[in-house]
Amino acid sequence: MKNLWEISTTEYAGGKEGVMRRGNVYQLANGYMGYRGTLDEFGPAELVGITLAGIFDRVGLAWREPVNAPNGGYTRVSLDGVERSVLTSKVTRHHQTLHLASARFERETVFSARAKKLTIKSARFLSADTPNLGVIQYSVSCDKAANITIRTGIDGNIWDLNGPHLLQLAAEKREGVLLVQGVTNENAKRVLVAEAIDLNFGEETHEWQDQRNLRVIRWQAEAGQTYTFHKYFAVVTDNDLAGKPIEPAAVKMVLKAKALGHAACLEKHRAEWAKKWERCDVQIEGDDEAQLALRYSIFQLLIVAPVAGSANSIPARALSGQVYKGAIFWDTEMFMFPFFLHTYPEKAVELMRYRIKTLDGARRKARTEGPGYRGAFYAWESQETGDDACSYFNIGDPFTGRDLRTHFRDKQVHISGDVAIALWEYFKLTGDDSLLLEGGAEVILECARFYFSHAYFKKEKGRYEILDVIGPDEYHECVNNNAFTSMVAKETFVIANAMVEHLRKNQPKALRALVKKIGISRELADFREAARLLYVPAPDSKTGVIEQFDGYFKLRDDTVEELKSRMVHPNEYLGAGQGLAVPTKVIKQADVVMMLNLFKTRYSAKIKQANWEYYEPRTEHGSSLSACAYAMVAAEFGDLDFAYKYFLKTAKIDLEAKYKVYVGTVFMGGSHPAANGGAWMTAVLGFGGVQADENRVVINPRLCAQWQTFRFYLAYKGDGFRIKITKTAVTISSPSTNVRRHTMLVAGNKTECAPGASVTVKYRPTKQ
Amino acid sequence: MKNLWEISTTEYAGGKEGVMRRGNVYQLANGYMGYRGTLDEFGPAELVGITLAGIFDRVGLAWREPVNAPNGGYTRVSLDGVERSVLTSKVTRHHQTLHLASARFERETVFSARAKKLTIKSARFLSADTPNLGVIQYSVSCDKAANITIRTGIDGNIWDLNGPHLLQLAAEKREGVLLVQGVTNENAKRVLVAEAIDLNFGEETHEWQDQRNLRVIRWQAEAGQTYTFHKYFAVVTDNDLAGKPIEPAAVKMVLKAKALGHAACLEKHRAEWAKKWERCDVQIEGDDEAQLALRYSIFQLLIVAPVAGSANSIPARALSGQVYKGAIFWDTEMFMFPFFLHTYPEKAVELMRYRIKTLDGARRKARTEGPGYRGAFYAWESQETGDDACSYFNIGDPFTGRDLRTHFRDKQVHISGDVAIALWEYFKLTGDDSLLLEGGAEVILECARFYFSHAYFKKEKGRYEILDVIGPDEYHECVNNNAFTSMVAKETFVIANAMVEHLRKNQPKALRALVKKIGISRELADFREAARLLYVPAPDSKTGVIEQFDGYFKLRDDTVEELKSRMVHPNEYLGAGQGLAVPTKVIKQADVVMMLNLFKTRYSAKIKQANWEYYEPRTEHGSSLSACAYAMVAAEFGDLDFAYKYFLKTAKIDLEAKYKVYVGTVFMGGSHPAANGGAWMTAVLGFGGVQADENRVVINPRLCAQWQTFRFYLAYKGDGFRIKITKTAVTISSPSTNVRRHTMLVAGNKTECAPGASVTVKYRPTKQ
Repeated sequence: MKNLWEISTTEYAGGKEGVMRRGNVYQLANGYMGYRGTLDEFGPAELVGITLAGIFDRVGLAWREPVNAPNGGYTRVSLDGVERSVLTSKVTRHHQTLHLASARFERETVFSARAKKLTIKSARFLSADTPNLGVIQYSVSCDKAANITIRTGIDGNIWDLNGPHLLQLAAEKREGVLLVQGVTNENAKRVLVAEAIDLNFGEETHEWQDQRNLRVIRWQAEAGQTYTFHKYFAVVTDNDLAGKPIEPAAVKMVLKAKALGHAACLEKHRAEWAKKWERCDVQIEGDDEAQLALRYSIFQLLIVAPVAGSANSIPARALSGQVYKGAIFWDTEMFMFPFFLHTYPEKAVELMRYRIKTLDGARRKARTEGPGYRGAFYAWESQETGDDACSYFNIGDPFTGRDLRTHFRDKQVHISGDVAIALWEYFKLTGDDSLLLEGGAEVILECARFYFSHAYFKKEKGRYEILDVIGPDEYHECVNNNAFTSMVAKETFVIANAMVEHLRKNQPKALRALVKKIGISRELADFREAARLLYVPAPDSKTGVIEQFDGYFKLRDDTVEELKSRMVHPNEYLGAGQGLAVPTKVIKQADVVMMLNLFKTRYSAKIKQANWEYYEPRTEHGSSLSACAYAMVAAEFGDLDFAYKYFLKTAKIDLEAKYKVYVGTVFMGGSHPAANGGAWMTAVLGFGGVQADENRVVINPRLCAQWQTFRFYLAYKGDGFRIKITKTAVTISSPSTNVRRHTMLVAGNKTECAPGASVTVKYRPTKQ
Repeated sequence: MKNLWEISTTEYAGGKEGVMRRGNVYQLANGYMGYRGTLDEFGPAELVGITLAGIFDRVGLAWREPVNAPNGGYTRVSLDGVERSVLTSKVTRHHQTLHLASARFERETVFSARAKKLTIKSARFLSADTPNLGVIQYSVSCDKAANITIRTGIDGNIWDLNGPHLLQLAAEKREGVLLVQGVTNENAKRVLVAEAIDLNFGEETHEWQDQRNLRVIRWQAEAGQTYTFHKYFAVVTDNDLAGKPIEPAAVKMVLKAKALGHAACLEKHRAEWAKKWERCDVQIEGDDEAQLALRYSIFQLLIVAPVAGSANSIPARALSGQVYKGAIFWDTEMFMFPFFLHTYPEKAVELMRYRIKTLDGARRKARTEGPGYRGAFYAWESQETGDDACSYFNIGDPFTGRDLRTHFRDKQVHISGDVAIALWEYFKLTGDDSLLLEGGAEVILECARFYFSHAYFKKEKGRYEILDVIGPDEYHECVNNNAFTSMVAKETFVIANAMVEHLRKNQPKALRALVKKIGISRELADFREAARLLYVPAPDSKTGVIEQFDGYFKLRDDTVEELKSRMVHPNEYLGAGQGLAVPTKVIKQADVVMMLNLFKTRYSAKIKQANWEYYEPRTEHGSSLSACAYAMVAAEFGDLDFAYKYFLKTAKIDLEAKYKVYVGTVFMGGSHPAANGGAWMTAVLGFGGVQADENRVVINPRLCAQWQTFRFYLAYKGDGFRIKITKTAVTISSPSTNVRRHTMLVAGNKTECAPGASVTVKYRPTKQ
């Protein structure tokens, strides 16, 4: 039977691209940093990357991007004076495994040379309890006596897309600890890596060569004897200890870990992961393929969940490298946040704190981006300050070699509403208004203020309109009355009004202080009017189809295939004003259907189906965000076959790693946490049929045929539930630690869920 | 001394391009048709074109364009059995002349062959009193006795850009008259050419061969004897005699002309031209170059002025061919109309009747072009119905071979206001409201209605805005609050309100009927509000510069040269969303400065100068409409050197014919009547300093240094004046036929101009 808690491979070569893709698939992370799934002996050419969360740098006019740290996990072994690597030496056997349960990466490789077999084994993890820390166990054995040399330490050769970011790279050895330190180019932030090892064989010397700060360990190995040592490396930056000396802290950290020892470090790490999985695992009986893909997706989200108190968020390519500038997009709020909100609210709150932290950046963007914009216009590509990392010329044109003007930055205004909606969802599902008081309320009001400054009133029609925007479908820029954007903007006003009401009743003093602080009292009436009068395109009275934006229905009705057949360059972009999709109905990704999913309680299944059937054939699915939206909506109106197909597509995107990784000469590879979140949403919200709001949890299961039993955890208003869905029944178990009794609506039945009790509700499955 | 009433050349070859350019320079027209300045023996390969006004056709999906008629002026001579053409035979001497005074084209060519000299002379005109008629005198002589054959008749081989437009081409000879007839492809309109000749030598046979309906005249010529015959050809279409038989009419027309005889036909033609010139000539003493160029420009306008009662207008390339689809642009109202309004109001009214005639087309465009547009959205490229001939993909992209999406058609909304302004100017300067009652008032109200349906109210700012447009500078599409467009829209509301007031007082019954007919009574209050609250960008309080549109000042400040140095293909378009000019401040043509010229009384010389100095260096002058706007504004604030330089550039554009004639593979050559109108405006309104409104004429002369005496005619409120400006004085002569006494403001002095009187006002010239 297949182990559904690990992935493994015996491949190690596959050229540069195979190495790169496995680097994504086997990556580790702990919220503080990511470590690509590369091998100990690899360097920058193999895209080794230790990508740090929340620290960014810019070199010249190139894209600003996250900083990669020197590689404290570097180890290379020589047999009889020749260095061994899977890429250049003869390999008899190779095996590598990613352990999902414990978030560890292991490899074992047997090299053959001169009739000797050299076996190396290593296992590493990025500590879940000490975010700065990485721990590696490394073993060597040879079947015959041999001269072996190990070079281990810190590799200062860093893979960068738009680097080098670390200047004045300096090495040191102090108290037996290796150090490599550099400072970022733009803000002179120090980034330091310290390494200690726990070694009881060989003779150690020291080497600083080719940007590597290394220990050289030489010994005469006995035949069949295994030699094991442990490495502890720590990454510390000025973000951790602003202004204070970071070397002593780093040295102390690795020495402390060394003193504690490998077994104890691992045990603490495992304990943390056991807690995560106990909460967040989703179990599918009867469908191993879905089980592994979904679990892997959840793993991808858990490893990049921000460190408590960091107020960091999750970039669109997670911590798998510097792709997409390490920036946070709407992906986080719309595709990843729901997973955390429903299972791990402690992390959801961190994601929201990031938006609160970057409110001033959003205010700056509003002030500078448009004439008369006010409030908070969140960055399309957000880094640590909330200023926009998105360039006005964001895509290369293969025909002219010039960059195309794209309007992602200046017109994709739905981002502010996405943030406001997530903040309000957090309040609704946790019942906790402390986040609002910590700045969330200010964010919401500033987002409403932004939309009001953006909206125009159309007098003849007696309505406000949101003009000149890009919706989720980026192939059609600068459109008017995009259904998704207008709905999100309108919802922002609705939320602002509801929030003001909530605070007026429950936190009047805080409300007064806030209204005064941002001088918004006279605008609240505007928000109420806009919530009433903002126009959102409605379903056509005959067909039920919602026009994606003004004039969409008049566009040329080409098929996706026709469009692609007209391409004259494989990398030509289909949007940006003159792209092939622009004059046609072909859309990049779910747009109206995304809106129907986000506001699913407001539209009938019939309307959902009509729009799904209209838009799906016209969708290129050129974004990894598209499939899950179509899957969830398909689940709602009962096309479970389609939903399942697109669920698998979404859930396996990073496991199979078959995505496109180069656009022109630009490396675009990396993981897809939004798709991973989409997989969870499709499973739990789609097939599980979970729909929670401030009043209650509703469960209307519609399991796909393959699934016998489906189990997941649900956090709600500070309590939690274990839910088990079979073909005919839903069982809800409320742990005795729950504080309150909750009434859920399960398959139409009001169901009381009392602390410590378990209740089962029978249901009749949807016919397919 | 140079004859300033003619242009001539001895060139005849110069390759295809030379032939084509001379075809433009030497063209004739009479409002009904144009006849390119090609030679008698030329055919379609030499771009012979008889382009008809007001009749259009479309073949397949190609551009719709005006119909060219079969060439009734075709004549070819054979000497000793060999046909002679300047392009293929030995030419000893060639001379061709365009007589501006009488609108005639003459050529004389001496061919040498076998020690013989064959001289042919021809002279042609398109009758100014019988618009369908062309008349040619053709003579042959040989210095030695020779066998000569003449083939003369109608060439049915037609040069078309996107033809063939005439199907079922059929030939006939009836009552000695040759006929060639075809029907248009799209609307099956008949186009017929009839030809008669007056011949008293040789033996005539008949030939229908290679699409030519010809007389073959053979004789043995005596040495030194001149043989002369006259040709009369008429073009008649279903537009002239809708539904009725057109052959008899055409036959009758040419036989009548033949009966009248060449001398009498010419005399009537000359008399008409004498009247035109007496009114419209402008005389410059001291500057022959300017004199000829300006007179030639005026000639270009006079030849294409629409036939009385035709309700035709003037296309952007006049009747010089099918370029620009033979379409009428804003060029007519903004650049040609002022000449006619100030000198020849009988033609100005025809131009306006064209817009009244095409009001329904403008209504259709509003209904179909945008969501909720109402009223009249005039076509960017207007043909006979007022439906838009402009394509959504109007410019080829040399990089992809595909057509670029341009927004000329859907966003260049200032066209409706341009029409309304011209209509109102006509009323103000003629004092005649009959045009308003004939449909002009309806046009104005429908234009105001269109702008109100287009405008949005910005609540926070308490103003209406005109969003998402293209101003005159077509390199920047889809911009908000373009100063020119917003000003024109606002003026449309102002005009609508003033017109309603005028009618209420003077034509209350007509007003009530109109308001009822178009159901506009409840909207009149909206127009008053919009006239007050529509936002037009104001001069910056410090610099005086008006921002061309929202965000213009934030664009990259590249020079025109920098921009051009970045071009990677010589024909790449600089606009259309991704062109090189789009992210920069480089503009195609006068935009803010055009606005300052159009609304010159509302801005100070200081503001004009500030904007001129800001925008001129940033202007590519990629349109022939640009130079005159900069010249006129320069004249106003006193930079007469610049004004003169750009005046000459404008006035000589068609005389020198050095313009670009191919864009990619598309032929774009032809005349530039808007620049011709611009030349007149720069001379009379710019240097002459004439500014007329409904109250009075103001004259503030600022003659350029070269001009000693400057004379022109001015029509005003049904009367007319001859005005002479010297370096120190302005003399106004009012013919005794004038009806009223007028008070003018001349160089600041109130000046009474009584019928039959002449008055001189001294002035102090502007210092330079």
